[in-house]
Amino acid sequence: MSRPSRSQLKIRRYLPILEWSKTYDRDVLTSDLVAAVIVTIMLIPQSLAYALLAGLPPEMGLYASILPLVAYAIFGTSRALAVGPVAVVSLMTAAAAGNLAAQGTPEYIAAAITLAFVSGLMLTVMGIFRLGFLANFLSHPVIAGFITASGILIATSQLKHIFGVSAGGHNLLELVTNLVSNLPDTNVITLIIGAATIAFLFWVRKGLKPLLASFGLKPRTADLLAKAGPVAAVAVSILTVWIFGLDTKGVAIVGDVPMGLPPLTLPSFSMDLWGQIFVSALLISIIGFVESVSVAQTLAAKKRQRIVPDQELIGLGTSNIAAALTGGYPVTGGFARSVVNFDAGAETPAAGAFTAVGILLAAMLLTPLLYLLPKAVLAATIIVAVLSLVDFSILKRTWGYNRVDFAAVAATILLTLAVGVEVGVSAGVLLSIGLFLYRTSKPHVAEVGLVPGTQHFRNINRHTVLTHPELLTIRIDESLYFANAHYLQDLIYDRLACDQPIRHVVLMCSAVNEIDTSALESLEAINTRLGEMRIKLHMSEVKGPVMDRLKRSHFLDELTGEVFLSQYDAHVALTKSPVRGVAAAG
Amino acid sequence: MSRPSRSQLKIRRYLPILEWSKTYDRDVLTSDLVAAVIVTIMLIPQSLAYALLAGLPPEMGLYASILPLVAYAIFGTSRALAVGPVAVVSLMTAAAAGNLAAQGTPEYIAAAITLAFVSGLMLTVMGIFRLGFLANFLSHPVIAGFITASGILIATSQLKHIFGVSAGGHNLLELVTNLVSNLPDTNVITLIIGAATIAFLFWVRKGLKPLLASFGLKPRTADLLAKAGPVAAVAVSILTVWIFGLDTKGVAIVGDVPMGLPPLTLPSFSMDLWGQIFVSALLISIIGFVESVSVAQTLAAKKRQRIVPDQELIGLGTSNIAAALTGGYPVTGGFARSVVNFDAGAETPAAGAFTAVGILLAAMLLTPLLYLLPKAVLAATIIVAVLSLVDFSILKRTWGYNRVDFAAVAATILLTLAVGVEVGVSAGVLLSIGLFLYRTSKPHVAEVGLVPGTQHFRNINRHTVLTHPELLTIRIDESLYFANAHYLQDLIYDRLACDQPIRHVVLMCSAVNEIDTSALESLEAINTRLGEMRIKLHMSEVKGPVMDRLKRSHFLDELTGEVFLSQYDAHVALTKSPVRGVAAAG
Repeated sequence: MSRPSRSQLKIRRYLPILEWSKTYDRDVLTSDLVAAVIVTIMLIPQSLAYALLAGLPPEMGLYASILPLVAYAIFGTSRALAVGPVAVVSLMTAAAAGNLAAQGTPEYIAAAITLAFVSGLMLTVMGIFRLGFLANFLSHPVIAGFITASGILIATSQLKHIFGVSAGGHNLLELVTNLVSNLPDTNVITLIIGAATIAFLFWVRKGLKPLLASFGLKPRTADLLAKAGPVAAVAVSILTVWIFGLDTKGVAIVGDVPMGLPPLTLPSFSMDLWGQIFVSALLISIIGFVESVSVAQTLAAKKRQRIVPDQELIGLGTSNIAAALTGGYPVTGGFARSVVNFDAGAETPAAGAFTAVGILLAAMLLTPLLYLLPKAVLAATIIVAVLSLVDFSILKRTWGYNRVDFAAVAATILLTLAVGVEVGVSAGVLLSIGLFLYRTSKPHVAEVGLVPGTQHFRNINRHTVLTHPELLTIRIDESLYFANAHYLQDLIYDRLACDQPIRHVVLMCSAVNEIDTSALESLEAINTRLGEMRIKLHMSEVKGPVMDRLKRSHFLDELTGEVFLSQYDAHVALTKSPVRGVAAAG
Repeated sequence: MSRPSRSQLKIRRYLPILEWSKTYDRDVLTSDLVAAVIVTIMLIPQSLAYALLAGLPPEMGLYASILPLVAYAIFGTSRALAVGPVAVVSLMTAAAAGNLAAQGTPEYIAAAITLAFVSGLMLTVMGIFRLGFLANFLSHPVIAGFITASGILIATSQLKHIFGVSAGGHNLLELVTNLVSNLPDTNVITLIIGAATIAFLFWVRKGLKPLLASFGLKPRTADLLAKAGPVAAVAVSILTVWIFGLDTKGVAIVGDVPMGLPPLTLPSFSMDLWGQIFVSALLISIIGFVESVSVAQTLAAKKRQRIVPDQELIGLGTSNIAAALTGGYPVTGGFARSVVNFDAGAETPAAGAFTAVGILLAAMLLTPLLYLLPKAVLAATIIVAVLSLVDFSILKRTWGYNRVDFAAVAATILLTLAVGVEVGVSAGVLLSIGLFLYRTSKPHVAEVGLVPGTQHFRNINRHTVLTHPELLTIRIDESLYFANAHYLQDLIYDRLACDQPIRHVVLMCSAVNEIDTSALESLEAINTRLGEMRIKLHMSEVKGPVMDRLKRSHFLDELTGEVFLSQYDAHVALTKSPVRGVAAAG
């Protein structure tokens, strides 16, 4: 094989399909096909249900599960990720489109399609510019809190379908009060169908697997069969409605779902609309990306595979653009279905393409059968799916480990529930960044001394160490930058104000990874002020990159003291002999 | 003297006047009075000029220089700061009020008064909650760039008065094109007056002081006399206009300035208006605070005094509230006049209160004399004052030292000139924070080895050090938090993928000041993954506060390796003997 040229390498970066398709054979094909069949069966009710959650016609859920999967198969790097409509992104779509138009209007549908397009563009551009690192600014606790709160919101929003009443709202209070005030209109038959489906689906999750296993099925097969629970619920409920004519007794049904190929659609190119949905599209992009990448990474790690986050952005971006062009709405990699895909043996992204074919067939052939499907059944599948996402343990964990993280999680959960998804997740991100900046603006600074018998220096308040009355050594535990430059200045002046015999101040820079222009100016001010007090300023353990930069300024010429390679060198030179030191409190 | 009680201490914190008034005597009084007379003379034309710059009636400049000074004298901590209208804040007021109403309308004036009130509230609240540290997020280079760009904008905006034409605009392009297109309407007499005043004021700055000194005056006296230049220009120009009747020949004059006490005014309490001016008021507050505190700190340092930034917030906040209640507009501590106050010998904030009396007398007695004052003269004093603020050297300094800072300065200057003050300074702040976050999200990480003959470990790429083939030591030069948690994970996996014999990985945490929940989860993942590869994960030099927190999690129980006090201990224990190490490239 000849060495690939540069442009070939570039093409390969953007088209992972060229890599895995080279070794594609009959065995892999079989595995992928089996996985595709199972995921298709799981995805049909899910697609319909999430479209309902997004406030969109059910067929849009199917359309969002066809071409986007093909796009991901071409551009994505995860071997097992199953793309399509997911709960949280559907809820965010409903919130964003609901701000612009009423559910059921053409403007609402146009807004959802445009959201997919703009979000797809954003993801693709972020991928091309390798901005995948931006997702890192969503901390794990904030994501966990957001998913939990969203799960609660989603489950609550679906209760109206279980009771057969109409009740809207974007936050928990609105949802609950609207629901409660409409409870007198409850349709009892709908409630029975809904409650029975919920009970059945929970039993499928908890009870069916052990039962199937007791019949001698392998655990994995039992597990996969249990995933078909929603399909069984769909089939049984359609039959029930048909036999008893329940649609004439007030049970809300899905109704006409158009049969055929997905339509070709175009997003709106109104800059006005783009401006209005910009923030929503950005949040949907980032949340969708984070959710998808974390699933993809988890599954890749199990097989010692790697995914490329920046290429994942392109994979998800093109999927969303594909969704916008074929009557879909925002999609991303889903947790539950990716795990099923993985467990069912999917080996390459081709499984996703085969799933797309399955859904396409469903859209072309099965939609008339869905006419009598009760909405309560779809709502029940959503409720059971999202309640498994609700997990408050992150509150306990962060409370015990890190109160700052706790504050961010608590704010995310409270604001998501009380105000809505967009405010909740934005507040979580801004709060975690703000608290991080706050901490770095007041860095930890320790006065250190020599640990006897070593060349190691530690905090005088925590260890028994040797110090010297004329020598003050300050270890700065943070990079020096504009936000903490003044803090250091104040701290040193305060420390010197109460200690007369000091003749040397050493800044131990083992943790200083950067000194920016503002901090350099502060160091110059400290150097000058100490010079006036006839105290010499020294530095030790300055890192290579920091030293390189300092050499380009005048600071080292003006420095009254020296720069020592190690703190031990500084200690020896400035105290003449370390033995002269006196032991500080342990 | 008995020990002050807790509540007395609290009162003293908020009322610095109680401290300095205890030792107030005749000598101090004399010094303060002399300084007050000089500052009053300087402040009269300045107040009028900055009101003109803010697009407000001239008397509002005087009103802003009376009660606010008294408020600062009571609540401020700087002994020499002179509060009042300043150039940059006046420009920002014009920009903010100009967004809401046309200059000269009552709505415009109401907006300016409300800006002062809201900004005063914000500053006071920030002071009570000790949020002064927020100002640290404005980096020195961003401030320097912003002041320079504002100076250019201000000078350009005043050229219309020099040419005697009307021309508005919020950015450089608008200002210049409007000015150029109106140049045919130039009033030649106005231009002569304006140009002559500018030339005179520049000569006063550069030429008068040496001249006076050659007459035998002391340098300080010569300096202070030179500061009276604008007053001389005002007096001479009024006389000239009167003698030649120039006001009838198209020279724009100040006109009627009401005589008497400042009026009692109330800000608007429309929440709608407050919402509209919120961001502007916040920017004015922070810029004003930063400018004021840096002047106050510089002057305090000269006399080995200290200022209390959080109390300064309260001082400036009450000053602005006072301005809003007495027909003024946003004020802050000014650089030029504070230096004059200091040089003239002001010893306590009482000098400011005496200045207020001086301006009050001027407002009550002198305003009829100002009727014929040409606006061109006021514009000339502004131009000469602000051009001294323009200094592009920060671009050169940051280019040489730190390109990241350069980017922030360049963006601040360009956007301030091209779009306006609010966008410019916001972009500077956001860009510097964004770039800082970006850097911390991809922290510097070095593979280290033992410097022979010491117990010190340095980067294997920069120093000749001892390493061991089974031991990989990674020094992380940044706190571990959500934004870089994944980065570390990827980095370690990549490093291990290409090096087989490694049996021990040591994370040297000398620069890790914090491990948040996200990073802890990443460490757990690394520990598990390395465990599967039968590689032990160790840590060394973990700091006290970090260790305290780790002990509260399960991580230390699960850690496959050990936590060593020093990297040297880790090296000795894991290589059995450091002598077995091999030297890596220097």
